[in-house]
Amino acid sequence: MPMNKQQVINSLINEVSVPNKEFGSAFASTNIALCKYWGKRNAELNLPMTSSLSISLGHLGACTKIGFAAGTTDQYTLNNAAVSENTVFYRRLVEFLDLFRPTADTVFSVTTQTNIPVAAGLASSACGFAALVKAMQDLFAWPLSLEQLSILARLGSGSASRSFWDGFVQWDAGVREDGMDSFAYSLEQEWSELRVGLLHIDNKPKGCSSREAMQATVETSPFYKLWPQTVANALTVTKQAIIDRDFWSLGATAEANALAMHALMLSTTPAIVYTQGATLDCMRQVWCARAEGLNLFFTQDAGPNLKLLFLSKDEAKVKELFAQVEIVAPFATITKPVECLHD
Amino acid sequence: MPMNKQQVINSLINEVSVPNKEFGSAFASTNIALCKYWGKRNAELNLPMTSSLSISLGHLGACTKIGFAAGTTDQYTLNNAAVSENTVFYRRLVEFLDLFRPTADTVFSVTTQTNIPVAAGLASSACGFAALVKAMQDLFAWPLSLEQLSILARLGSGSASRSFWDGFVQWDAGVREDGMDSFAYSLEQEWSELRVGLLHIDNKPKGCSSREAMQATVETSPFYKLWPQTVANALTVTKQAIIDRDFWSLGATAEANALAMHALMLSTTPAIVYTQGATLDCMRQVWCARAEGLNLFFTQDAGPNLKLLFLSKDEAKVKELFAQVEIVAPFATITKPVECLHD
Repeated sequence: MPMNKQQVINSLINEVSVPNKEFGSAFASTNIALCKYWGKRNAELNLPMTSSLSISLGHLGACTKIGFAAGTTDQYTLNNAAVSENTVFYRRLVEFLDLFRPTADTVFSVTTQTNIPVAAGLASSACGFAALVKAMQDLFAWPLSLEQLSILARLGSGSASRSFWDGFVQWDAGVREDGMDSFAYSLEQEWSELRVGLLHIDNKPKGCSSREAMQATVETSPFYKLWPQTVANALTVTKQAIIDRDFWSLGATAEANALAMHALMLSTTPAIVYTQGATLDCMRQVWCARAEGLNLFFTQDAGPNLKLLFLSKDEAKVKELFAQVEIVAPFATITKPVECLHD
Repeated sequence: MPMNKQQVINSLINEVSVPNKEFGSAFASTNIALCKYWGKRNAELNLPMTSSLSISLGHLGACTKIGFAAGTTDQYTLNNAAVSENTVFYRRLVEFLDLFRPTADTVFSVTTQTNIPVAAGLASSACGFAALVKAMQDLFAWPLSLEQLSILARLGSGSASRSFWDGFVQWDAGVREDGMDSFAYSLEQEWSELRVGLLHIDNKPKGCSSREAMQATVETSPFYKLWPQTVANALTVTKQAIIDRDFWSLGATAEANALAMHALMLSTTPAIVYTQGATLDCMRQVWCARAEGLNLFFTQDAGPNLKLLFLSKDEAKVKELFAQVEIVAPFATITKPVECLHD
């Protein structure tokens, strides 16, 4: 049976929450999809057309603190600046908070610190909504599993469903209309040598949100019909590559899947192009380096920045090629960012 | 019945040609596809997966003169420079000439002048092979129709089949295995206000030939299966737009079709990217101008250069936006380029 967001939430949190403390706080890692989520089967519940697979980025993500405020409107502070009520960001947060108010006149105060650029294709909304849901769980003491929290976060931002675990995470598309089978889970595979290199090409907020972009793609790309099978194939190959520790297969599949997603966007009307000249330059550098024998691949999300994929043994070579690269070791022991130490 | 190139030619030219003059010469316009040719159903005979539709560029193209030479190897002069026997260009020409030698020891001398850059996505091989076939007809006095010449030129380069007419030209994919139904013809529609603006972004020869690129696309793009229907739809809309003089429909369809072709290439493994940073900048300028009300579109072929589409009334505005644009009026009375005046 189709449900709306409130019905989904009510089915998980079945009694009025009584806060057991003044505020809740939590950190959630951002995640980078190796097999992309692009297109929804249900826009209200953020149910995806396809399953997807991501890698979490350890210490990179969002810290969120939620408590209560006086007054009539929610307060939202993002990276030390008050977010104005007239912004899309603010409205999106408040719409989500509306689903969780214990009483109609509850007013929230939300403070978020990120150590990644916001709305620049670095999944800031993924870690943002995941951290918010975890902070709310901390505040309200919900007796929910991570999979259930994943469903709640999905209602805010699809890819947020994947930000509850370290390492490789799969988010199942599911088939149910209420989406209760569309949540993420850990693949429970460690690959300590794996590295992700962030190439910050342009961290200005993007012109077209992923949400709008994927909707336009589904509606107008002449090739979208073949996307579900394309991702399904990529998922099968990627999961086997993880099990086999076959880095070439993992990297090649991730790069091809990202380019196929951007190909879909290019074929959308009007065309959606997140790529910039500098993005192309970096892609060509990767291809040249690979032609010369370096096991280096990239993936790209809804922004101009690239994320490099390589193994620890090639760190020095990658740094030589891209002096500005920010290297993440996804399987290193995670040290919580300093902003979260007040927890 | 499948045939090879020689059998196709023999079926059209059924007696040994006796040259009636010392040399033959001809000019052929280059052409820009509005509905693209990308992918072959038969690589030997250059039979396309889809029909395509082009506009010829009037005075822009190739002048070719063919005669006989002493010695043992063909002589090929392109834009006043001898082409070395070790180049792909030379080998491709000689392979084609092999199909037309009256005797085994015939040696040809071919001189070609183009007024467009070579191998930079401006269909130099299209006008090159068309001019060569016309020059051979002049030399050998073949009693062939333009449609039959179109078949001969197609054996050299698929898009050359479209360079025998001014204005709008359609090249039918055909269904026959021998390709005798895969030739081009004029749509016999004039649209005198139509303008094509050439934006020369980078005229260096491309790294990957269209021939190799389209083959790789057919073999590896996960979306290629939907390309034939995409082009078929674009053809229907474009032909109606030409009849209705509906410029918006013509331009929007051409731009979407070009981007869909480049999307296919982006989804090919390894990815094929002809686009450069400056190409993206020009695209974005076009999109901005259009958002501000200018009826301006682009198309892009296997190279970084863009071809703008607009109407004569907007010439001044387009020149203001793109100072470097070279404007072609495809339906103006064609003055043969000066290099051909020796005919």
